[in-house]
This record gives sequence, structure tokens and C-alpha cells, in this order.
Amino acid sequence: MSEAVFEILRKVTTATVTTMLLKKGIRRCWMSGPKPLVPGGGRLVGPAFTLRFVPVREDLATPESWSAPISTRAAIEEMPEGVIAVADAMGVPSAGIFGDILCARMKKRNVAALVTDGVMRDLTGVLTSALPVWCAGVAAPASVSGLTFVGWQQPIGCRGCALFPADVIVVDDDGAVVIPQALVDFVAHEGAEHELYESWVFGEVEKGVKLPGLYPPNDDAKARYAAWRNTRS
Amino acid sequence: MSEAVFEILRKVTTATVTTMLLKKGIRRCWMSGPKPLVPGGGRLVGPAFTLRFVPVREDLATPESWSAPISTRAAIEEMPEGVIAVADAMGVPSAGIFGDILCARMKKRNVAALVTDGVMRDLTGVLTSALPVWCAGVAAPASVSGLTFVGWQQPIGCRGCALFPADVIVVDDDGAVVIPQALVDFVAHEGAEHELYESWVFGEVEKGVKLPGLYPPNDDAKARYAAWRNTRS
Amino acid sequence: MSEAVFEILRKVTTATVTTMLLKKGIRRCWMSGPKPLVPGGGRLVGPAFTLRFVPVREDLATPESWSAPISTRAAIEEMPEGVIAVADAMGVPSAGIFGDILCARMKKRNVAALVTDGVMRDLTGVLTSALPVWCAGVAAPASVSGLTFVGWQQPIGCRGCALFPADVIVVDDDGAVVIPQALVDFVAHEGAEHELYESWVFGEVEKGVKLPGLYPPNDDAKARYAAWRNTRS
Amino acid sequence: MSEAVFEILRKVTTATVTTMLLKKGIRRCWMSGPKPLVPGGGRLVGPAFTLRFVPVREDLATPESWSAPISTRAAIEEMPEGVIAVADAMGVPSAGIFGDILCARMKKRNVAALVTDGVMRDLTGVLTSALPVWCAGVAAPASVSGLTFVGWQQPIGCRGCALFPADVIVVDDDGAVVIPQALVDFVAHEGAEHELYESWVFGEVEKGVKLPGLYPPNDDAKARYAAWRNTRS
Amino acid sequence: MSEAVFEILRKVTTATVTTMLLKKGIRRCWMSGPKPLVPGGGRLVGPAFTLRFVPVREDLATPESWSAPISTRAAIEEMPEGVIAVADAMGVPSAGIFGDILCARMKKRNVAALVTDGVMRDLTGVLTSALPVWCAGVAAPASVSGLTFVGWQQPIGCRGCALFPADVIVVDDDGAVVIPQALVDFVAHEGAEHELYESWVFGEVEKGVKLPGLYPPNDDAKARYAAWRNTRS
Amino acid sequence: MSEAVFEILRKVTTATVTTMLLKKGIRRCWMSGPKPLVPGGGRLVGPAFTLRFVPVREDLATPESWSAPISTRAAIEEMPEGVIAVADAMGVPSAGIFGDILCARMKKRNVAALVTDGVMRDLTGVLTSALPVWCAGVAAPASVSGLTFVGWQQPIGCRGCALFPADVIVVDDDGAVVIPQALVDFVAHEGAEHELYESWVFGEVEKGVKLPGLYPPNDDAKARYAAWRNTRS
Repeated sequence: MSEAVFEILRKVTTATVTTMLLKKGIRRCWMSGPKPLVPGGGRLVGPAFTLRFVPVREDLATPESWSAPISTRAAIEEMPEGVIAVADAMGVPSAGIFGDILCARMKKRNVAALVTDGVMRDLTGVLTSALPVWCAGVAAPASVSGLTFVGWQQPIGCRGCALFPADVIVVDDDGAVVIPQALVDFVAHEGAEHELYESWVFGEVEKGVKLPGLYPPNDDAKARYAAWRNTRS
Repeated sequence: MSEAVFEILRKVTTATVTTMLLKKGIRRCWMSGPKPLVPGGGRLVGPAFTLRFVPVREDLATPESWSAPISTRAAIEEMPEGVIAVADAMGVPSAGIFGDILCARMKKRNVAALVTDGVMRDLTGVLTSALPVWCAGVAAPASVSGLTFVGWQQPIGCRGCALFPADVIVVDDDGAVVIPQALVDFVAHEGAEHELYESWVFGEVEKGVKLPGLYPPNDDAKARYAAWRNTRS
Repeated sequence: MSEAVFEILRKVTTATVTTMLLKKGIRRCWMSGPKPLVPGGGRLVGPAFTLRFVPVREDLATPESWSAPISTRAAIEEMPEGVIAVADAMGVPSAGIFGDILCARMKKRNVAALVTDGVMRDLTGVLTSALPVWCAGVAAPASVSGLTFVGWQQPIGCRGCALFPADVIVVDDDGAVVIPQALVDFVAHEGAEHELYESWVFGEVEKGVKLPGLYPPNDDAKARYAAWRNTRS
Repeated sequence: MSEAVFEILRKVTTATVTTMLLKKGIRRCWMSGPKPLVPGGGRLVGPAFTLRFVPVREDLATPESWSAPISTRAAIEEMPEGVIAVADAMGVPSAGIFGDILCARMKKRNVAALVTDGVMRDLTGVLTSALPVWCAGVAAPASVSGLTFVGWQQPIGCRGCALFPADVIVVDDDGAVVIPQALVDFVAHEGAEHELYESWVFGEVEKGVKLPGLYPPNDDAKARYAAWRNTRS
Repeated sequence: MSEAVFEILRKVTTATVTTMLLKKGIRRCWMSGPKPLVPGGGRLVGPAFTLRFVPVREDLATPESWSAPISTRAAIEEMPEGVIAVADAMGVPSAGIFGDILCARMKKRNVAALVTDGVMRDLTGVLTSALPVWCAGVAAPASVSGLTFVGWQQPIGCRGCALFPADVIVVDDDGAVVIPQALVDFVAHEGAEHELYESWVFGEVEKGVKLPGLYPPNDDAKARYAAWRNTRS
Repeated sequence: MSEAVFEILRKVTTATVTTMLLKKGIRRCWMSGPKPLVPGGGRLVGPAFTLRFVPVREDLATPESWSAPISTRAAIEEMPEGVIAVADAMGVPSAGIFGDILCARMKKRNVAALVTDGVMRDLTGVLTSALPVWCAGVAAPASVSGLTFVGWQQPIGCRGCALFPADVIVVDDDGAVVIPQALVDFVAHEGAEHELYESWVFGEVEKGVKLPGLYPPNDDAKARYAAWRNTRS
């Protein structure tokens, strides 16, 4: 996974990513939950860095736990530059996993984005941190009111998706998708080609062409696309 | 159903439509789910054109199915100008029923709006198409990842509402309501009168009048409203 | 509860309020549901004024009921200036508890805000009324299509929280929290101190300080904070 | 409401009760949740005695609260013989409202049954108490782990139904229905007649008669039923 | 689809049916909802006969509708002997689709079973009818309190499954599965073979054999199974 | 944790366990989901052995995965005698985690019980295996149709509870509770004493004693209990 392939992926919509993965039999790749905290911010791509929570237990989720070797603080310090952190918060809607300070530290460390099926807290502060966040909403209470942090870089689930540390994450206004490591090159190159084809179809529709025969294309449409495609390479 | 009655309905809020229908014993007329993709875009009115999906089955929901005689593409080509397409997607949150290309074609055919209890895909592209959409959110995956299209202009359900092809749809920032064909004239004319009355009440409240005796009105308030009403006709 | 303590609370985020209450063993103080209808509008504080609905019953929830001694209209006229009205609508998503006229009357009576686990109707009109509202969305149908109003200033539940008339409500972009009357002073003063500490931590993070040892602080960080704190009093 | 009318109601299924209430425009009369803890135990009828819970708040839901004047214990001592206690537990699935001891005391006081949208605890002990219970399941934790008791004989909601102290409750294997006081006589007498008619229809079906024309009846079927009916009075 | 293949399928568990369909890429074949009203009643197989409901609309779901050409009564008279009726009730939990009389008529017509994602009413009467039923529970209210019947032998959805009239249904204590017509022979014959293999594995486990190497089998286990299998044909 | 303390715990209801843990500030100890597959089977106690699933991913959840070093088969062979296996299946209702063969092997290895927030498959076969199971229902499809197994003896969540390998599990007809290792002795001894006290209260209620003053006890009741208690030691 080079930066070059990431650069290609940045021009492939998450919608197209899911279509490319469907060609390989992967249907469970979109996280039904995380949405951009600030829509319209474009597309981000990076390797996954996983975080895992289990439910709160009152003897464990204490202020003391924040100084423990296994803590969200320690996890953040382990994050390499450019990763997209993905936190499995089991979809809990009432305990904000991170607030302004942790987000500011992640931003400082050049983490690309944070994705979670849980929620954030202190919305104003999180926005101030400028960390790009995909989440399921906001809540005032802290993570310890509903969650116990148990580790990082383990396999996790996030709203119907399985994620492993070596996977690649793409996020945009449609949400967050995961690409298994072995399929990243395929998705990038086929996806870019697919985007080109769809841009041609969109132009045809603007001209008034009917959908049947165009999308999917019949032989005539294939030929017209091929001609147009040739003029571009 | 003339354009004239639609013109009246365009000034009646969906809130008032539900109140008028309640007078006729109809409680199930608001779809609990579809929201405007772009709030603040005003009110639209049109006859319903129904679309129906059932869950995906892997032997049927294939790319080949997109070229079949019963396909979303074929359905779109059947839509008359001015209709509001209503798609029963069973509230599935993880399969975008339409993306930019299908929306662009609907816009080209002068479809007034698209309403669904499901979700859209490729949000940026859908916004570019400029088709007004009321839906339950967005998702990256295509319809075939969760849904099978089975036909158009059949009776459908949409988040608690029954819809039939001859019904009339009104959408605004409160969501989407359905008016049975036989009640369209009643709702338009009574509704317009009701809007006038509420505008007078709002003015009274602005002047500091208390609610009891005003809303609903006692005899004194009725008389004052009648006097004001007379000055307007 | 003086205005002075409310003035302090207006500078304490709801996130911090929940952390202070957790120190006193209170975990159930944030309402999982109400969100600001207009985000970015700042923080409001006031004593709770409770409203209670039960489900609709067709022989009771009638237009006549709106003129009854126990009605939402009567309740509004009982609201003292500065209160935050909190309505237990059992989270019903399909019946708007209040529309433009009732909100306008509340605004006229200087009610500080309306909080509900239910929804509003006539969004455009509610925004026109300028009453600050925290709710779970909007719906076109009126309250009587789904709810029966049964009284005010009783104990209520609101999305996982118990509320009693003497409690204090704080709302901001993270939602709504309730402070038991006996803990208001503690939360205000400890909370203000906590905000100061977090602002110092945020500054340290901006300088590039690592989280472990800083948040929570080790002895060195405590000393540095104390020094900084002294320069400010 | 005499015992005589209750005696008639004991032979009317809850299914028929809902059909009779529908004739009077009442659709919201069945509680979607409470099921018999011991199915097959027959039908019970009695006036409602309401109990109300709100969510737990840690400063209020304490062991001390069990000795307070407003407590479940005090409520039970107020229950007249023959009532059906209905507890609004807001459908909370994880806090058992009553266990063996409170049920045993209710049984001792000749309470007819307990109905709740919540759950019981200590299933074995509750069964030993022999109190007939309609509930939504069982949980080990006590009510104070999730609920605060706030009073009795107030209006309540129970899974979509409004209940008032003067209402009448009927429970059988289909669940629990509420009859508004003013409609009890109508439901009992019309309901008994309806049961007779349905028993005749069932017999016709056993003989092989087709449904169209029989149920609902055409003129011929009406005449045959009238003849049969006459032989019975 | 001969009776012979149905006879084979009656010995194949629904669990095994899903495993065979997974081999053909079909994952969506089990209905998440319908459970046997009387567990322990064995396995039934038959062609699907579909029924479709949409939500109630008060101007349509009336007693008069029961005599209409499109009615549940008319649909029942169209059911061929041996079919398994599958009703799409959109999972509505509060309106019983059929009661004792309709079930009795279906039984009289030798319908094999009724499957629905909805609920039944008049549990006692339905049990008396002796019609085998797979459903999601019971409710007292009639279908017209929540549903409008719109037709039969159309494509339907049932709790995550698509069903078409030519499909085959298998029901047992694990619930209900659908087999696409084209795969019935494959599922029956491969499934029967798979049952035989699993019965041998179960015996091996009873003898104390470890799972790894046995299930799935390594070469040694394959050889031992082949030897055992040969002794049986 | 000796067998002696387990022997005491076997006489303490899960209801009482939650009450004892509440005294120590632990509210999140009951799993809201697992129910006994065969009610009335008594109480079981054992150390937790955790299993963890994440959602399915089609490139990973394959038949080949069943032979992998990290597989449910391998996990079962690691289970010590007497443990209670607890599987975090994220509450997925449509993929049976284990069927007859895996349950039979667990039974053979003297595993005490299986607890899961997920579901089983092949109900008849599981009952034949005689392994005591607490689960959330049954489904026909195999685990690979919805889940990927990722490991054992890790921290897990199970319907609102955190579980760690050293915890102790108690299951009975009220469901499943977890006792943190450090509190096992306290819960066992205090719990046994509490059961004795409740049995005395139950006897008093049977004699007709009122609840206020008895439960919780006033001074008089305390004295009477002490006297009775003394006669028993």
C-alpha cells in the first residue's frame, strides 16, 4: 500500500468502493452509523488503527483507569501518522468516547481522521480541534459512564463491519467503508475506471439519453463510451 | 385533481394537511422517516408514482437485473411529468436506492420529487442532480446490496402509511404526507382556510393574548376572527 | 438557587456537568434524545417545569380537550419566567407536541427553552417563534394524533433521566442535562474550576505535550498547573 | 360496574373486546408488551389500579426509599380487593419491578392480577406466590437498579395505551386490554353477542362452508344465523 | 418439484438448508421472525403462497373491505392444497392477521401451514383450528386495526427474505427458510447427504473424538467417514 | 475461588447476586438477553471462559476458517472442565453460533454451560446434546453467515455487561450475571445470609404481615428476625 494508491483512492467515492468490493463478493464493507461531523469536507483515506471498548463496569471504569497502561491516552500515543482511527464503541449513544483534548492530541500527531459507531462529547471543543470525525452523534457524558477501554490494534466490529488493523479505510459524505488489504489495489484501479465511466454516463443523461441501454450499457453505448474514453487517455 | 387545487395545496403546511385529514378520521397519513435532503427548500405537491422493493436475494439482485424489463431504469422512464415518486424500501438503512445518475434522469424527466423510507447513495452526486429528495439518510452501498426491485404503480407502504397510485403527496420541512384522492379538494380548501385562521391566532399571540379562549377560540375570539376575516375577503 | 449560580453554570459545558455529577455517583443525568433545533445557539440554564403526556386514547384526545382545565394551553400559562419546560412525550416520533403558536406564546412569557424527548411540528413556524428548542426531530401530525396531555409539575422521565420540578436544566450543543437541586452549587463551582483546568490542558496539548502524565496529571503536571492557576486568580 | 358485567366480560376474549371498541372508534386499547407469565390460565377482569415509575436517579432510588411514604410497599397496601394492578415501567427490560415477596403480599390482599410493560425478578419465587402476572419478561436486578417509583392511581401509559384509574382491564392469552369506564356495558353485552355469532361461524366453517358470504355474512348467512340464534334464546 | 423431492426435504433441517444455499451464494434465505406457535411439531415443506399487507388507512381498512374481491377471505379460497401461505405483515406486532375462523378454513382447505412476520389473534382459537402456524407472537386487535390487505401471489418480503410464488418453504423449530425454485433439487439431495455426514460426526463426538480434524474433516476423517458411508448404501 | 464458595453460590439466586453487587456500587452485572433454553433447570456457577465474534466478512468467514488455528473448534478444546463459556455474538439474531455437534463436544469436555447474547442453531440437536444453554433464541443459518470468530479468553461485552476471563458466572431462570473475581466471596456469604432473611420475610407475608415495617424491617421486625435467625444457627 503505497501513497500512490491512496492518492488514486481519494478520487473514488465510497459508493464506488462498495460496488468494486461487491464484484469480489464483499457485501459487508460499509459501516451503518458513522457520519461526518462536518459534512462537505471531502474524502480521506488511510490504514485502520483500531480501538476497542466493552461496556462499563463500575469497578474498572474509573478516573484511575485513565492513567493505566491500557488507556485511550496510551493508545493515542501509539498511533502512526496518517492512520484513520476506528473505535468500536458498540454503538453506545450515551457516552462520548473522546472530547476536545484527546482529539487535539490526535490532530497534533497527524492522525488523519477518527471513525466510530459511538458518539463524541463536547461538540464545540471537538470542532475546535479540527480533527476530522465520522461518528453517530454527540453526548455530554464521558466514556467511563458507559464504556471500558480494553485495547488497540485488535480485530473489531463497527456497525456491521469487521475491521482488522491492516485494512484500509475510506470516508466521505456517504460514511465510512473498509477495504481488505488484499483488495486495495484492485479497488483503486477498477474504481478509478468506474468513476470515469459514470462521469460519461452522467453527461449522456444530461443530454437527455434514456437509461435503458445506457446504464448498464448495451453494445451501442459501450462503443460510444469506448470512443470517448480513447479521447481521454 | 387540477393544477388549481395543487396551487392551493402548495400554501398549506403538511402539519395542517394532517389536521384536516384527522377531521375525516384519517390518522395514518404522515410518513415517519422521509426528511428533506436539503431543508428549507419549500413545499412540493404532486400525484404519487409508487416504486416497490423487497429484500435482496443473491440469485436475483445482480447487475443483469438492471437491464431487465422490471427495473428501476424502466420505472423511471414510465414516470409522467410532475409526479412525486415514492419508493417503499422497507426502511433499509444500508442500501442506497438511487444515486446521481438515476436522480439526474428523473430531474430531466421533470419528476417533481423523490420520497423514500430508504436512503440515497453518492450524496454529492445526488445534490448535483438537483432533484428534490425526501429520504431517511445516505449510505454508500448500491440498492442490490440490500434490495430487489419488483415493480411500480402498485400499492405500497412507507413508514406506517399506505400509498396508492392515485394518492396525492405533499412534502415540506416537516416531511411527507399522503392525501387520499377523494379528499384532496376538501383538504386544499379547508386547509387554506385553516392557515388563514392560524395566521390570525399567531398575530394575536404576538400581541400578548393568552392561549385559553383563543386557541381553540371561545365565542369572543370567534367574533374577533370573523371581523378580521371579513376585512380580507 | 440564585441567578448568580446560574450565571456560573452558563459557562460550564454539559459535558463537564456530567463529570461533576459522576463524582457524586450520579450517572443518569443526560437525556439521550433532545438535540438543539438550531445548533450553535449557546448554553441555557433554568429550573425545570415539567409537562407530561401519556399515549393517545381516542375518547380523550379530542379538539375539545384543548379547552379543558388540564391542557397544554393551561400549562403554558402557569410557566414562570425563566424556566426550561421539559416535556415527557415518551419519545413518540410521529406526533408534534407543539407548533408555532404554542411556542410563540411560551416565548412571549419569557420561557427560556423547551426540551422534549418528542418532536415538534411546523418547523418553519417554530423557528419563526424564536423559542429555543431541544427535541428529537419534527413531524407534521398534531399531539392529539399520538398523545394525551395529563398534567404539569409532576415527576417525569425523559429518555433515561428522571426529572423533578425543583431540578435545574442545562442545555447546549451536546444536549440536555439535569442537576438535582441539592447539587447545583457543587456542580457550578467545581465545574467552573474544572473548565479552567481543561483549558490549561488544551493549551499544553497545543504545545505538543503528550497525554500520559498530563491528563490526568502526574505530580509534575499538577505543579505546573498550580503555578499557571496562581497567575490567574 | 357491577360484578354481573364482569362475569359477562370473563367470557369475552380480548380479541373481541378490541373489535367492540373499534366500533366506538377506539383503536389504542391493547398493550403491546405484557404477556401471561403462565399461559393457559384463562381470562381475568378487574378495575385498573395504576402504578408509575420514572427512570432511576441514583440520589433517589436507594434502599431508604423502600420505607418512604411513596413506595411500592405503600402502594400495595392501598390496593382494593379484586383490582388489576397495572405498572408503567416504561418498558425497561433490565430491572425487575417486583419479586416473590411483593407478589405474595398482593396475592394475600386478593389483588386479581399484575400487568406491566416491565419485567419481574426472581421468576421461581413469583411463580410460587401464585399471583397471576402479565409482563414483558424477567430480569435479575431490582427495580432500583433502573427505576424510581413515583406514585399510584395516576394516569399512566403502558406500551401504547393510556390508562386511567377508573378503566377496566381484561387479560387473557392474547395479552391485556383496557376498556374505558363509559364503554364497559357496551363491550360486555355486544361482545357476548359477538362471541355467539363467531361460534356459529366456526361451526359453519367446520362443515365446509366457504368464507366469502359467511364472514362477513350475506343475507342468506344472516338468515341462517338468525334461525340458529333463535333456537338458543 | 415432485412430492418425492419434498419427501426428502422433510428430513433435512432448516439449518442444513441454509448451509446448502450458502454453497450457492444465497445468504438471505431465513426469515428472522417467524417461530412455531407450537414447538416440537416437526418439519413441513410446501410451495409458497404469498399474501401481502400494507399499513392501515382508515378509509380503506373497514369491515366492508372484508367482503371485497381483494380480501383475505378471497385469498384463502384461492390457496391450492399443500401450500405454505406466507404473509408479509411488515412485522407489525399489534394487529393479529388471522384468528380462529380463517385458520379453520385454511385447515379445511388442506393448507399445510401459515408463516408470517406478523402476529396471530385469539391464540386459543387458533390452537383449536390445528393449523400449523409460524409467527412472531399474538395480539388481540384485528388486522384492520393496523394493516390493509392488498393481494396474493405477488413477490413479498418477510423479515429480511424475498419470496416469490414459485419458491419452496421449509419450516421447523429453527424457523422458516425459503428455497428458490431452481435450487430445490440441489438442496434436497446435497442436504440429505450432509445430514448423513453430520450424524456420523455426532457419533464420533459421542465417542470422544476431538473437533479439529473431524469437523471439518482431515484426510483421515474423510476416509473413516467414507468407510462408514459405504456400509450404509 | 474454591469449589466451596461455588457450592454456596449455587443457593443464591441471580436476583440476590445483583442486590449484593449493588451494595458494592456494581449496577452493570446482568446480561440483558441470555435466557435458559430449557427453563426450570436450576442454577449453575462457574468461571467465565470468553469467546469473541466480530461481524462476518465474506473473505474471512469461510468453511476453510473452521480449520484455522483461531476457530471455535480450537477454542472448545481449550476450555477447562467446569467453566461457563460466554460468547459475545454482538446480539446478532440471525446466525446460530453453535449447533448440535459443537455443543455435544462441549458437554463431553464437561463444560458447565454456554451463555451468549446471540442465538443457537438446530434447536433439536442442541437439546439432544444436553449442554445447558442460555441464549437469545434460535436461527437456522450458521455463524459464518453473520459472524467471524476472532479469539478466546479476551475481555468481551455481553448485552451491556463487561466480562473478563477471571470473572465468575451464575445462571438461573432469571438469566445470567457476572461477579468480578474480587467480590465472589462477599457475594456468596452475604448473599446466602440475604436469602435466609428473605425466606423469613416470605413466611411473615404468608402469615398476613403488612409490608411497611417488614421489608425493609423496622426495629421490631429486626428483633423478630434476629430471634428466628438464632434458632437456626
